[in-house]
Amino acid sequence: MAKALIIGAGGVAQVVVHKCCQNPDVFEEICIASRTKSKCDALKEKLDGGKTKIQTAQVDADKTEEVIELIKQFGPDIVINVALPYQDLTIMDACLATGVDYLDTANYEPLDTAKFEYKWQWAYRERFEKAGITALLGSGFDPGVTGVFCAYAQKHYFDEIHTIDILDANGGDHGYPFATNFNPEINIREITANGRYWEKGEFVETPPLSIKKVYDFEGIGEKDIYLLYHEELESLALNIKGIQKIRFWMTFSQNYLTHLKVLENVGMTSIEPIVYEGREIVPLQFLKALLPDPASLGPRTKGKTNIGCVIQGVKDGQPRTYYVYNMCDHQEAYKEVGSQAISYTTGVPAVIGAMMILKGLWKKPGVFNIEEFDPDPFMEQLNKQGLPWHESFEPVLLD
Amino acid sequence: MAKALIIGAGGVAQVVVHKCCQNPDVFEEICIASRTKSKCDALKEKLDGGKTKIQTAQVDADKTEEVIELIKQFGPDIVINVALPYQDLTIMDACLATGVDYLDTANYEPLDTAKFEYKWQWAYRERFEKAGITALLGSGFDPGVTGVFCAYAQKHYFDEIHTIDILDANGGDHGYPFATNFNPEINIREITANGRYWEKGEFVETPPLSIKKVYDFEGIGEKDIYLLYHEELESLALNIKGIQKIRFWMTFSQNYLTHLKVLENVGMTSIEPIVYEGREIVPLQFLKALLPDPASLGPRTKGKTNIGCVIQGVKDGQPRTYYVYNMCDHQEAYKEVGSQAISYTTGVPAVIGAMMILKGLWKKPGVFNIEEFDPDPFMEQLNKQGLPWHESFEPVLLD
Repeated sequence: MAKALIIGAGGVAQVVVHKCCQNPDVFEEICIASRTKSKCDALKEKLDGGKTKIQTAQVDADKTEEVIELIKQFGPDIVINVALPYQDLTIMDACLATGVDYLDTANYEPLDTAKFEYKWQWAYRERFEKAGITALLGSGFDPGVTGVFCAYAQKHYFDEIHTIDILDANGGDHGYPFATNFNPEINIREITANGRYWEKGEFVETPPLSIKKVYDFEGIGEKDIYLLYHEELESLALNIKGIQKIRFWMTFSQNYLTHLKVLENVGMTSIEPIVYEGREIVPLQFLKALLPDPASLGPRTKGKTNIGCVIQGVKDGQPRTYYVYNMCDHQEAYKEVGSQAISYTTGVPAVIGAMMILKGLWKKPGVFNIEEFDPDPFMEQLNKQGLPWHESFEPVLLD
Repeated sequence: MAKALIIGAGGVAQVVVHKCCQNPDVFEEICIASRTKSKCDALKEKLDGGKTKIQTAQVDADKTEEVIELIKQFGPDIVINVALPYQDLTIMDACLATGVDYLDTANYEPLDTAKFEYKWQWAYRERFEKAGITALLGSGFDPGVTGVFCAYAQKHYFDEIHTIDILDANGGDHGYPFATNFNPEINIREITANGRYWEKGEFVETPPLSIKKVYDFEGIGEKDIYLLYHEELESLALNIKGIQKIRFWMTFSQNYLTHLKVLENVGMTSIEPIVYEGREIVPLQFLKALLPDPASLGPRTKGKTNIGCVIQGVKDGQPRTYYVYNMCDHQEAYKEVGSQAISYTTGVPAVIGAMMILKGLWKKPGVFNIEEFDPDPFMEQLNKQGLPWHESFEPVLLD
């Protein structure tokens, strides 16, 4: 029986709150806090009346002092950070100051450099160790479940893993000619950034979207997949012993890429303000205002996501292949928690990660990536909490 | 020796002013007038020192009284209207009030309906007749030279014309991924409007860009052409006796259409304001601010335009085909007059039309479309004034 402070009130937070309330044996009491308290109150109103007690609070997570104050008031056993990645460090600082465990779903990035790197958060290792508290980094789906999948494969099926291909497919259709699932700024940045994969001890850079394949996904069908960099590559390259190659692949439709390319061509994705009628306007911000609100996509989105890992290696001297994946249905997710699969697949693993720490299963002083823990209890919870996984020992491989 | 009042100071006006100054035997004195006098002064500065005397003036052509006042002051023999089509009627009213001949390059359209129709200007016929003055409508390239081409074919090569296909190709490349040659609002409206062609006594509507063919243009090569409505179809259908079918075709690249479609999809071409940070912003206006300034395209644009008419009919009881066209080089036009071919092909015919009236060749009381006059002296001037034409009696036909 524990208390969790949830920072954030967006789509993922909504899933986290629902799932906490579905597990009152673990989450006795939660506090939902964000910059806009009315959003927290709206969530509380939806879910009040169950066994889990719900509080709300206003907090500016950019300000460590405010987070410390709130932690002191509420007294949580863990802080579940589902706010913006820019706020990871201020919240970690507050956890250090108050001796409370910490969990997030995406690694810290400074506002100005747009670099996905763990170095800023790994720099907290010693301080968390000394404080005797746990920080679990990247407990969403990818990063998150993908790391658990790799650790599970390592533990049960391989003596040595040589190749990991993480495949992230979204077969959802929202019926608009163009819209983005979440913050379009992040979508656009992912796509316009160089690709990067890990091979033989170093990262290899590739031009944006220059490596494309087609993969046939269960529950979705054939999709174009593109090699991207994704943050879990950095930790998996260190934590999976003997690994030779790790790549991350994501589906994008030709239609989506065409829209993005055109918007880039005309300057609509730029974050440099232009002066329009005497006032500075950031084109990307104006585009956001024109596009459908990501929150409005939930009720309209049909189809499934399919995210998993295709793994190659050896067991008992024999080559072995293994594919472990989850399929999540957008409409079913929306029916259950009011958010579609993109938020669902991120929020549920955050709650499972918190459970692991609160139950003492993953309670260890320091700062950790998810694949550093025993995957078995997490894999068990995935099946119980709405993200059942499937496995195959004869998957189609990527050359 | 005559005096011309030129209303407008954009790309076409720049061509008109240059060409008037190249023909000081006809244009003894000109006055360049527009809302922004500094633009007129800049043009004057460029061209001062030749035989043609140049004045400038500030005028709001929306206000008939202001135009009347200016005509009284300057005392022109003709008003060359290369301002906005919204201003045709106020300028015609001023010509009526002062007894001065009138010429324009595009038909009047009310600001709110976006309909290309001659009815508003044709309604002035009786008043111009009674005033003893001439109004020449649509003396650009298309409308304009295309009508002269048809009249020329009719006069010299056909007993009866059955089919006219007007082909407007722009092979220009400005090197930007996307930009529009002139006001993007007009570009976008042309493309998103229904197509329309004239067949057997009536107009047939087609969905936007639904009829596409490929045509091999001299000087340009193979291009996609799309059936559009264009204003000269309305007058040619009445003025070419025995005509059974008239169509207008324009080239658009797949790249251009893709950009336009995407911008439409995300709402960037909308003229409905949205509220952004507390202020109303029209998305299309914001897009204009982002796109390269159409005026900046001139120096960068390479390649040619090719505009002409493919005509089918009978002569002496035998079927006959005829193709008459002009090719205009963007860079040569820019070198000569500081505007590329799109403006050049509109401005030169305006000056030739004015010559026809000022020389008394086309001086007739009333309101006329260009194909109603003897085409021969106009065709002769096209060759002299920089728009030489070519003809073929075995053109590739459009089915």
